Amino acid sequence: MHKITLLIHCADQPNIIASVTTFMASNDGNIVYIDQHVDREQNIFFMRLECEFASSLFSLEKFKHLFNSELAEKFQLKWKIYSAERKPKMALFVSKYDHCLYDILGRYNSGELFLEIPFILSNHLDLKPIADSFNIPFYHVPVTKATKHEAEQKQLELLESHNIDFIVLARYMQIVSETLIDKYPNRIINIHHSFLPAFVGAKPYHSAYKRGVKIIGSTSHYITEELDAGPIIEQDVAHVSHTFSIKDLIAKGRDLEKIVLSNAIKLHANRKVMVYNNKTIIFS
Amino acid sequence: MHKITLLIHCADQPNIIASVTTFMASNDGNIVYIDQHVDREQNIFFMRLECEFASSLFSLEKFKHLFNSELAEKFQLKWKIYSAERKPKMALFVSKYDHCLYDILGRYNSGELFLEIPFILSNHLDLKPIADSFNIPFYHVPVTKATKHEAEQKQLELLESHNIDFIVLARYMQIVSETLIDKYPNRIINIHHSFLPAFVGAKPYHSAYKRGVKIIGSTSHYITEELDAGPIIEQDVAHVSHTFSIKDLIAKGRDLEKIVLSNAIKLHANRKVMVYNNKTIIFS
Amino acid sequence: MHKITLLIHCADQPNIIASVTTFMASNDGNIVYIDQHVDREQNIFFMRLECEFASSLFSLEKFKHLFNSELAEKFQLKWKIYSAERKPKMALFVSKYDHCLYDILGRYNSGELFLEIPFILSNHLDLKPIADSFNIPFYHVPVTKATKHEAEQKQLELLESHNIDFIVLARYMQIVSETLIDKYPNRIINIHHSFLPAFVGAKPYHSAYKRGVKIIGSTSHYITEELDAGPIIEQDVAHVSHTFSIKDLIAKGRDLEKIVLSNAIKLHANRKVMVYNNKTIIFS
Amino acid sequence: MHKITLLIHCADQPNIIASVTTFMASNDGNIVYIDQHVDREQNIFFMRLECEFASSLFSLEKFKHLFNSELAEKFQLKWKIYSAERKPKMALFVSKYDHCLYDILGRYNSGELFLEIPFILSNHLDLKPIADSFNIPFYHVPVTKATKHEAEQKQLELLESHNIDFIVLARYMQIVSETLIDKYPNRIINIHHSFLPAFVGAKPYHSAYKRGVKIIGSTSHYITEELDAGPIIEQDVAHVSHTFSIKDLIAKGRDLEKIVLSNAIKLHANRKVMVYNNKTIIFS
Repeated sequence: MHKITLLIHCADQPNIIASVTTFMASNDGNIVYIDQHVDREQNIFFMRLECEFASSLFSLEKFKHLFNSELAEKFQLKWKIYSAERKPKMALFVSKYDHCLYDILGRYNSGELFLEIPFILSNHLDLKPIADSFNIPFYHVPVTKATKHEAEQKQLELLESHNIDFIVLARYMQIVSETLIDKYPNRIINIHHSFLPAFVGAKPYHSAYKRGVKIIGSTSHYITEELDAGPIIEQDVAHVSHTFSIKDLIAKGRDLEKIVLSNAIKLHANRKVMVYNNKTIIFS
Repeated sequence: MHKITLLIHCADQPNIIASVTTFMASNDGNIVYIDQHVDREQNIFFMRLECEFASSLFSLEKFKHLFNSELAEKFQLKWKIYSAERKPKMALFVSKYDHCLYDILGRYNSGELFLEIPFILSNHLDLKPIADSFNIPFYHVPVTKATKHEAEQKQLELLESHNIDFIVLARYMQIVSETLIDKYPNRIINIHHSFLPAFVGAKPYHSAYKRGVKIIGSTSHYITEELDAGPIIEQDVAHVSHTFSIKDLIAKGRDLEKIVLSNAIKLHANRKVMVYNNKTIIFS
Repeated sequence: MHKITLLIHCADQPNIIASVTTFMASNDGNIVYIDQHVDREQNIFFMRLECEFASSLFSLEKFKHLFNSELAEKFQLKWKIYSAERKPKMALFVSKYDHCLYDILGRYNSGELFLEIPFILSNHLDLKPIADSFNIPFYHVPVTKATKHEAEQKQLELLESHNIDFIVLARYMQIVSETLIDKYPNRIINIHHSFLPAFVGAKPYHSAYKRGVKIIGSTSHYITEELDAGPIIEQDVAHVSHTFSIKDLIAKGRDLEKIVLSNAIKLHANRKVMVYNNKTIIFS
Repeated sequence: MHKITLLIHCADQPNIIASVTTFMASNDGNIVYIDQHVDREQNIFFMRLECEFASSLFSLEKFKHLFNSELAEKFQLKWKIYSAERKPKMALFVSKYDHCLYDILGRYNSGELFLEIPFILSNHLDLKPIADSFNIPFYHVPVTKATKHEAEQKQLELLESHNIDFIVLARYMQIVSETLIDKYPNRIINIHHSFLPAFVGAKPYHSAYKRGVKIIGSTSHYITEELDAGPIIEQDVAHVSHTFSIKDLIAKGRDLEKIVLSNAIKLHANRKVMVYNNKTIIFS
């Protein structure tokens, strides 16, 4: 049994659903999941589909070729096909905070995450013992003004040599380079410690305290060149009050950060996220 | 342009999605929405589909006939088709509490609800002025031990003469008769003032107070013969604390009740709810 | 039995709690509620206290005099005393949207709100029938560029002649004048349809749609001269997804707006809100 | 500087607040926090108070003696005094699930928790490596029908020899003995994986799936002899849908369990919880 996940978007047009489902059926595929969305403002059609092929002779390469020539060209589809057998490879970038790292690795260990973590990378050595206790290779790549370019090269080498599919910045605290963003478009996931677009930038808990908000939040988004402005994958919030000091806000925020980031990772790893014009469609 | 909504369920089997979508396409229908769910425990397939037909000669009756003979029999489908042009007719049963009534009628007036309200029925006269101010016919059908059967007959007459599709008990506070439940299976919506299955029965806020819960809730469900045990459509909750008196819990609960009930009404009226084995599938 | 509510703030200093409670006891007052907060950043002490006096000879004026001379001067207290017998008078300013109005008047009618509503004021006539059905005087004060000053004068006259304590802008949709803000500092409550400080200004749901947020919110705050920047009283949020059109966001937002605004009104009317340096302390 | 936390409850009566605060002041104590609650149904007064004493000669023993003779006897107070210098000692009981353990130890390591963990105890060896990596002693105390009494004795010895103040069952999965409950009344904290009182007992996620609820929850409570019926400290919930399999519910539930349990631990360790008649008062 081969199972594929197909993500499509194109200009909205009649018969697109029927054409795709007929194509699958005529190639002996059995659709086990289908969901779609039409953005009426931009007139764009999005679809996520899971299909099973029973034949032992199924070839993903041939399927792709056929799909492209028979369907994709006709409808001007943008599409991605993933084999359900292949787990995506995720690189974890961390710095000194450990709460997101523990949360992710705990889930990883328990089998909750459909992915592989070939390595953890950090600009500091503080979290190496955690990587060690989970038996995951740890690379120390310090970043200073002088070594910035060198560090970036080291990062790229590691990412490529490990065939990394996407990167997670688990409170990495460094601005990643444009080169990296260009190489991994909508594939670098960040966790920002505010309910974006409120409190963009550094020290959002201090800003939240100053403004006297009654709710704090956390936002996981893809990194784009504009700071904290990339497509939002997941957000959550918690109620707070005047009794919360900045320290209390930070502690409460950690609970949000780790859950929100792990949820975003799961959505991405399960190929449930599409991005169009800086917004996400989440087929959950 | 004719638009239909189709709800299907059947034993899960290969090619069901492709067959339905191909049928639509071959009858010049354009699918604009499709969503599906497979209950893996019971092996049941569920689908909701919206389809547009451009032809001015489109006949719903002929479509139903064709759909039945070509598809429904083959796959042993259970199905319902609704024309998007026809708003469902909803009867509102109330008693003395007005918060749900105001909430529903406010939304009704603003055009938020896709439905008609031919009448409001109550066993008391207290809320008649509200019905009057919204220009909705109000029927006073008192219920006493002696008049119970007579009242039930009066209710049935009203429901039938107005071609009512579904009934909403907006804090009606009376147990409806088996006859009514049998005539409107999964079409009588109730609001229960607890997060079911906790605090079944009367005085749930008193029970919540006594148990010292930190969260109270509200549940909208279809009425079945077993009290407070019908399929759950919508639930929501609010955090409370030891400072809440029973009166405070009741006040907080009113906020939940009205929002949860109105959301359930919207889901039902928009044909987004399917029921199977006492559970709902919500295609929202 | 006379019951007072006392709100105090001052520079934090030793023995302030003991001094106040001793003062109450020595004047035959029985403290039935006490709560306090210290803002450690600004070193300010806040207290809310409810005290009962059994004597039929209790005089609020004499109490105030005594409190001031014996305590307030010594500790440089800023203080307010309210008699629990006197309901605050609230003016309701509305425009064309009715959801907040219905919510407030529904609660008012059911006795949930500890306040009086001497009148409703609007720049349009659309909601007059609702005011009529609840038997509350309705004043139509149109606002155009030409009549702006005249309208403001009319507003002030009405507010003064009815001894209004605080004003609620229930989706009033007009910017109120500086004169009004100066006359009712921290006593004009607004409902903004976003989780401030995100999406300040007009059309926040359009901005939320554009940004692709996964959570929308609503914020009730006191009006200050800077737009949407006044002290926040209450906020709440709801999860949304890519399937929400702007219209859907607006509908969902209405549910938040009405509950959040009504909660803010209750907090204010029950004298549970203090304001300091553009932030609120909520003694709930 | 010595700081104490005082928890009081007694029959509600006049002047209790003033008497306590005057006592503190007359002994050169400066009250830095005071909160109180009156249960109007049972007519019980509760208070939590933090007080600082500057004198280097302050003696907690003398204070207790004085407080008892001058105040506690007069008002028939039940009271507890804690020195802010002394961190409570918490024993962690675990079994095979690691999510709560990681969450607690991560917070412990980061200094978020005001407590000491002298040891972790388990009936299995699975989680020993985690204890080791955090350098916390781990005791393996297997429990079988035959060894039940012996295991209980071993537990009691460990608890006593380490001067344990309270016990946390972090998904311990065993029913603790009456002896233990009697020795640690309202000092054994459990995490139950449902929003109690719904789904009492084993396999609550299976029950939730079967009932088709739209919300699942988690409850932290003190252990009493009646199963899952002890005083509730903290609860939280998450929205779910028909798309959630039992496995999905369990995964989502883990997120709730760990946050809810850690919050309950913080409340208890900070002496913010009082218990009366099987209900908690949370001074947060």
